[in-house]
Amino acid sequence: MVVKIMMKVYAKEGMSKDEFVHYWLTKHAPLAKQKFSDRLKKYVISIVMSAEGEEPGYQGIAELWFDNMADVQKMMSSPAFEQVMADSAKFTRKGTWLMLEEHTIV
Amino acid sequence: MVVKIMMKVYAKEGMSKDEFVHYWLTKHAPLAKQKFSDRLKKYVISIVMSAEGEEPGYQGIAELWFDNMADVQKMMSSPAFEQVMADSAKFTRKGTWLMLEEHTIV
Repeated sequence: MVVKIMMKVYAKEGMSKDEFVHYWLTKHAPLAKQKFSDRLKKYVISIVMSAEGEEPGYQGIAELWFDNMADVQKMMSSPAFEQVMADSAKFTRKGTWLMLEEHTIV
Repeated sequence: MVVKIMMKVYAKEGMSKDEFVHYWLTKHAPLAKQKFSDRLKKYVISIVMSAEGEEPGYQGIAELWFDNMADVQKMMSSPAFEQVMADSAKFTRKGTWLMLEEHTIV
């Protein structure tokens, strides 16, 4: 069963939103795409433009889809994962995760 | 430009997770699909299975895509919107929104 992971991404302190978005889209995303190409089925980055009801604190959300939990575990225990996480530290100060079950309505 | 809205959905107090998910998928989602069919381009429901790094507090996330902001505003000021929101109160206690700019990497 498809596994969806949503990661709430907090920009590194002292980095402007433009710098954060630019680094993510032009440096980090291509690296993650290359390193995880064998397991990652889909990867979407969403940048927060505005919020209502509560201040999220994070500036972006990464959504990642995998075929199954075994693929998630293999990715997380690979040397490539450590390289991608090391690169994350260049533009983020924190990332928290949710694991989700997805239902497409429309 | 496509507008993506992410709504963090908090289950109604006293409702089990199964009841919450069942109501959303079998009652609320079909109603929203029908009422917003003219403007809603895509609608995905994600149920939180587990979290790491912080406790989210919400049990589900709705993602909704529209062609543009004018369509969002038309939807929100329609009588259909009030009907869908009234139905939300049957299975949720709160919903907070994010407006996002989406980038598909993989």
